[in-house]
Parts: sequence; structure tokens; C-alpha cells
Amino acid sequence: MKTAIITIGDEILIGQIVDTNTAWMAQKLTNAGFDVTEKISIGDNARQIKDTIADVFTRVDVILTTGGIGPTKDDITKKTLCEYYGTELIFDDSVLANIQNVVSTWTALNPLTHDQAYVPKDCTVIQNKVGTAPITWFDRNDKVLVSMPGVPYEMKFNMENEIIPRLQSKYSAEAYVSKVFIVVGYTESALAIHLTDWENNLPEGFGLAYLPSPGVMKLRLFVKGEERRHELEEEIVKLYNLLDKAIVADRDIPLEKILGEHLLSSGLTIGTAESCTGGNIAHLITSIAGSSEYFKGGIVSYSNEVKCNILKVSASNIEKDGAVSCSVVTDMAKGAQKALNVDCAIAVSGIAGPGGGTDEKPVGTVWIATAIGERLVAKKYQMGKNRDMNIIRASNTAMMQLLEMLNE
Amino acid sequence: MKTAIITIGDEILIGQIVDTNTAWMAQKLTNAGFDVTEKISIGDNARQIKDTIADVFTRVDVILTTGGIGPTKDDITKKTLCEYYGTELIFDDSVLANIQNVVSTWTALNPLTHDQAYVPKDCTVIQNKVGTAPITWFDRNDKVLVSMPGVPYEMKFNMENEIIPRLQSKYSAEAYVSKVFIVVGYTESALAIHLTDWENNLPEGFGLAYLPSPGVMKLRLFVKGEERRHELEEEIVKLYNLLDKAIVADRDIPLEKILGEHLLSSGLTIGTAESCTGGNIAHLITSIAGSSEYFKGGIVSYSNEVKCNILKVSASNIEKDGAVSCSVVTDMAKGAQKALNVDCAIAVSGIAGPGGGTDEKPVGTVWIATAIGERLVAKKYQMGKNRDMNIIRASNTAMMQLLEMLNE
Repeated sequence: MKTAIITIGDEILIGQIVDTNTAWMAQKLTNAGFDVTEKISIGDNARQIKDTIADVFTRVDVILTTGGIGPTKDDITKKTLCEYYGTELIFDDSVLANIQNVVSTWTALNPLTHDQAYVPKDCTVIQNKVGTAPITWFDRNDKVLVSMPGVPYEMKFNMENEIIPRLQSKYSAEAYVSKVFIVVGYTESALAIHLTDWENNLPEGFGLAYLPSPGVMKLRLFVKGEERRHELEEEIVKLYNLLDKAIVADRDIPLEKILGEHLLSSGLTIGTAESCTGGNIAHLITSIAGSSEYFKGGIVSYSNEVKCNILKVSASNIEKDGAVSCSVVTDMAKGAQKALNVDCAIAVSGIAGPGGGTDEKPVGTVWIATAIGERLVAKKYQMGKNRDMNIIRASNTAMMQLLEMLNE
Repeated sequence: MKTAIITIGDEILIGQIVDTNTAWMAQKLTNAGFDVTEKISIGDNARQIKDTIADVFTRVDVILTTGGIGPTKDDITKKTLCEYYGTELIFDDSVLANIQNVVSTWTALNPLTHDQAYVPKDCTVIQNKVGTAPITWFDRNDKVLVSMPGVPYEMKFNMENEIIPRLQSKYSAEAYVSKVFIVVGYTESALAIHLTDWENNLPEGFGLAYLPSPGVMKLRLFVKGEERRHELEEEIVKLYNLLDKAIVADRDIPLEKILGEHLLSSGLTIGTAESCTGGNIAHLITSIAGSSEYFKGGIVSYSNEVKCNILKVSASNIEKDGAVSCSVVTDMAKGAQKALNVDCAIAVSGIAGPGGGTDEKPVGTVWIATAIGERLVAKKYQMGKNRDMNIIRASNTAMMQLLEMLNE
């Protein structure tokens, strides 16, 4: 089933926004059995929107559009779709009710928001449960166009819960059956070598992909067609025989969610002591709903003063070994356990860059200590030169290190 | 001058890669006076490449393509361009010399690299000084197509040093003049209503775009032509009259960067005390290189125990008013100033959701206290129901609240 994604909005054409939506959409569509054959970005321009849709429909069966359906003057997609399909806008009370439900808690309904309840007459309206702009689904001669918001979380929520399920049921597309594994304790090349024989003997049509994700090792095993699921299960058994406890999850979920599930089931509490990651690990852990059950708190000890005063890091260790060292990161982990009164601690100290590097400790040097009760592991890692990537990689690596300890 | 960007490569269509190139290219082109009217991603498919170019040239004057010109089998752009323009590949000694110059420092020349010196006969070849794939420039009937590598570093170097200067000298294009404003205290639709009269009376050719971002409102005002800069300045004066202190920045930069610049210039230090934002504010502040100059540390006080032990929040205030309250968030801000020994503090306590809400304090209730020395402001906000969005919105709102105090 050939599919095109059209993003509508001047802000993308002038480069003010980096489009992360369509990569996400393309991945979900591909997995669901839809071939994305083109992606197009155009402006908030009625003529261009109509011409592009007409042109693209000569090549594909499904068009998904994002953007241009907000309440302001430059949002013209909804009106333009009416022109394209020769219909008109009508007021829909059920959409108004949904909008009122969405906005009621944080703002009063103003005329512009109210008018988002006008929808094209001859289309299926999908209620947007997480935003005020309704989703519209046009089906003519078996060619489908779906118009949705460009706000990433609204788009993602509706793609997953509404649009992809409806597309699958309409086109009975042959989806991939697949499984994602998160593996600890291997580098990518070590894992590739360990799996060589198994990978070479996978049945016809099977694929194994190493999914790029900084600091996390993710594998995806896949094959097209529900009827091959039993073969997939057989290969999964073989993979478990090869990797055993190195597999910490068999779903593509964030590390912080895996960690949370481990902590919940074991009844352990956790706290963090962060220097170069600057609070990102605490942020990731607390991004999971219900994390207050196991996460008690964290210290972002950016300055040495905070390390000594709150985490009781030994000042002589800082002087002797520097703040990025085994002794300091060990003190930080133990200090966090004590100050926060928790069972497990993650401590990170490193040089995120771009400044602060030396010959001995270049940018990207990161020490990570993880502790569970009396057990403690401290390891040194060498990461890259990019500050943002180092923060992400160090955060994930630290959670991986604790997960490995929890699995032992 | 109408311009299109075409990215060629299967990896973008399956969503394996987030395309950051074209936003960068579009920004540079727009500033240089070229209107990017469409961006298209297609696969490594000769038929699709030729059809797309032919089609797009019916609408634009300039096409820039990236990708598909590497040395491997799936790189078919160069060969396909020869077919499109009815020409053939010939060996170019000057390209070989450039390749040898580029690779000599890091690897030996292999046959695949050597063959990159084959270039289309009837085109202008631009030597790629930072990579082995030459750039080709086709000019037919005043319509230009430039094919360049997709490797970000190579693309950027050649766009800046070769392609944009050549395009500017060929077409004397008129650049946009524009300004981005960051505005606090309005929802998108409330701001639109407030600005309606002014927006309706903007001079011919002016555009106003809303770039929504949770907790932050961004506006972009733009018009084409350097000669209209004085009109732009006049409209900016009117906008300031309408919004006054609600404008906290007139550049499109992250709040944490605006905040960092304020703190650096005033010589003030800062610390954070976070409950529902879980470390995200510390993470945002420390995402800025050089933030260790003003950020000393943060406490993520998720549990009441940590609030009392480290931030010295009054246990009776927690019992009396609850953890999400004016008194507790005030204690947290003062406690952070003391525990972290900082001039300014941001403290946040709220109910991010989905659990934890009550009738009196529903999900989305957030108290924020900001302090500078002895001055302290504590405010209550009602946000939405989505946990991730509440964390982002509360983080931005908290920085906005401190920025407003710093501006006074």
C-alpha cells in the first residue's frame, strides 16, 4: 500500500523547525505494512496544497498530512481540504464537546478555539483526545487522506491509537511481525560476533537490525506476515539461549521504564547524584508515571561545593583525583544513598564539553558509579565531543549499568 | 527565485534517519533570498528520481538534491542525472586529484573511491574539498540543479562556501528580513485576538507566523526585501506597544539560554528545587555550554522526606497545606538558596499526572516559586492532563517566571 506524508507549514520550508515527525511516522507506517514512497513539505498555500494532493494521489493510495489545522489565520488546511473535496465546513457539537473536555482544566474557551468545532461535511471526524484540532479522514474511490495536527505528541497519540489501526483495518496490510530486544553487557561489535552463526542461519525473509540509540543496545528481529509468527517465536527462543540474562527487555520501551519495572517488582528505592548529566537521569526516571513509588530524589551536584556539602564527597578525593574520577563518583553514589535514604543510587561525573577537557581527561570522559545496598560498581567511559549527545549517552549508559547489576 | 530541495535515500523514507539537513539548508536559502517552496524525500529509485525532477522543474527555478552520490551500489543519483540530462559519465583528472588530496590523510585510495572521479560530461563540477563525492551543477534554460552529498558536514561546507555564493551571483535574489519574538502570558488564541487589529493592518507582503511551544509563545514577523527593513522596524515598535514586557526575547533561542545570558551578565548564581518537573529544569539549564559559571546545583525532592531533610521544608506546612502548595514551594525555593548557596532559585511542586489528582488539586495543578535574594514570587498554574506536556510546560513556565522577575 503506497503511502505519502505531506507536511504543511511555512515554518518547515523556512527551516525554523527540524521535522522529527515524519521519521517517526515513516517508521510506524513501515512496521504496519505501509510503504512510504515519498515525503513532501509544502507551505500554507491553498493552491499548492490542492495541486500537491491531486498530483500525489496519481501515485499513492494513502496520504497523511500534518499541520495547518490550528486556530490561527495561517492555518488553512481544513478550509483547503473542503475546496479540494468540494464540500463545506459544518459545526459539529460532538467536536465542541471534545474540545471543551480537552481545554476545560487549563483555559476558558475563546471564539477561535470554539471555531475548531467546524469540520468538513463529507468526511469521518476522529476526535482528538489530546488537543483541540479534530482529525479528518477523507475516503474517495478507495483513496484515503487523513489530516492531523503537527504538534508531535498530538500526532503520535492519534497515529498510534486511531489512524494506524483504522488504516490497517481498511487495507488489511501485511504487517511485519517483530520483536525488539534491549541487551546489556555487550558492545555492538561484540554482540554482532556473538550472534554471527545464529544470524547467518535465520530463515529466508528474516531481518535483524541494530537500532541506533546512544548508550543502549537495541536489536530488532522482524519478518513480514502474521503467518510467520511461529517461526519468529522459534528464533526468539534461540536468541534467549544465546543471550540469557543480557536481555533486559523484549519490547522497545525506554530504559527508565524497564528500570522502574525492576525497582517496583523488587521493592527497591532509588536516588541520583548527577554532575555532567545535570539532572537528566532524574528527569528520565520521573518521566514515568508512578515513579514516585521508587524514586525518592536526586542531587544535581554541578559545583564541588554541592558535592561536598550535600553528598559529603571527600574534599581530599576531589583535590587528589579531580571531580571526574573513580573516588569522587564512588563518594557521590554512597552519599546519594545516605542523603536520600535510598537502596540504589546512580552517580555520574564527567566532562560533557565543549570546554573543560584536558590531555589526561578529554571531553567525553565519564565516570559512572551504580550502587545497590553495599554492592557498588564504578566504571570509566569515553564518549564523544558533542555536549548534547554526551548527556544522553551518559544517562542511558548509567541506567544500563544499574540494570546489569539488578539482573545479576 | 523558487527553490526545491530533494533528498534522495531509502533510509529517510523508512524513518531510520531524522532529516536535519533540509531545515538547515532551507534557513540558509531563505536568508539568501531564495524561496523554498517545497521539500521532497524520495527513494534510491531511478524512475522516481527522474520523474520527480521533471515534475518539480515545472514549478521551480532551482533544485538542490542531497544524497545518493556515494561510492556504493545503492548510490544511483549521478548515473540517473546523466540519464535525465542525456549525457554520460567521463573520467575527470582534476576530480581524481581532489579526491587524492582529500583522502591522502586518512586512507588509501580503493577502486570505489577512484571511480568517484567519473562525472557527467555536460555539467559544471564543483570540487568537494571535504569529501570524495564531487558536486555537480547542471544549468539548462536558466534552470539549475545542484547535486551534493547528504553527509551533513560535507553538505554544509559546500552550501556555505560554494553553492549559495554561486546561486546568489547567478540570480540576484532578494533576502527576507524578519524577527522572532518570545512572548509570555498568552495562549496562542488569546494572543491572536489581542493582535488581530495590528495583524489585519500589516503592510502588503508582511507575514506573521505563530510558532507554538509549550509554556512559550513564539511569533515570527517577516517581509521580503532589505529595502523594507524600515517598515519592519515600524511594525516592531507597534508590536512592542501592544505587548510591552510580555516580549522576553527578540531572537529564536531556548529559554534556558536567555536565562543563562541574564545570569551571566548580572553575575548571579542559580539553583533548583524540583518536585513534579523531576530534574528537567536543571537538565535544561545545564544543557547550555558554560552553565557551570552560574548553575551550582539542584535538588530533586520527589519525596516529602527529601523536601524536609535537604531543603528544610517545614513538615507542618506539608501536613497543613499539602506538598503542592504556596507554603511548601516557598520553603523549597528558600531552602534551595540556602542548601546550594545560590542567589536565585526556582522551585516547582505540582501534580504532573496521570495519578495524584484530587477535586481540590486536579492533575495539572502546579505551584512555582522563584526567588532572587530576598525577593520571592509564588504562583499557582493550572496545566493540562498529559504528564510529559505538564513537565515541559511547568519547566518553561518556571523559567519564564524567573525571567519576568529578572526583567523588573
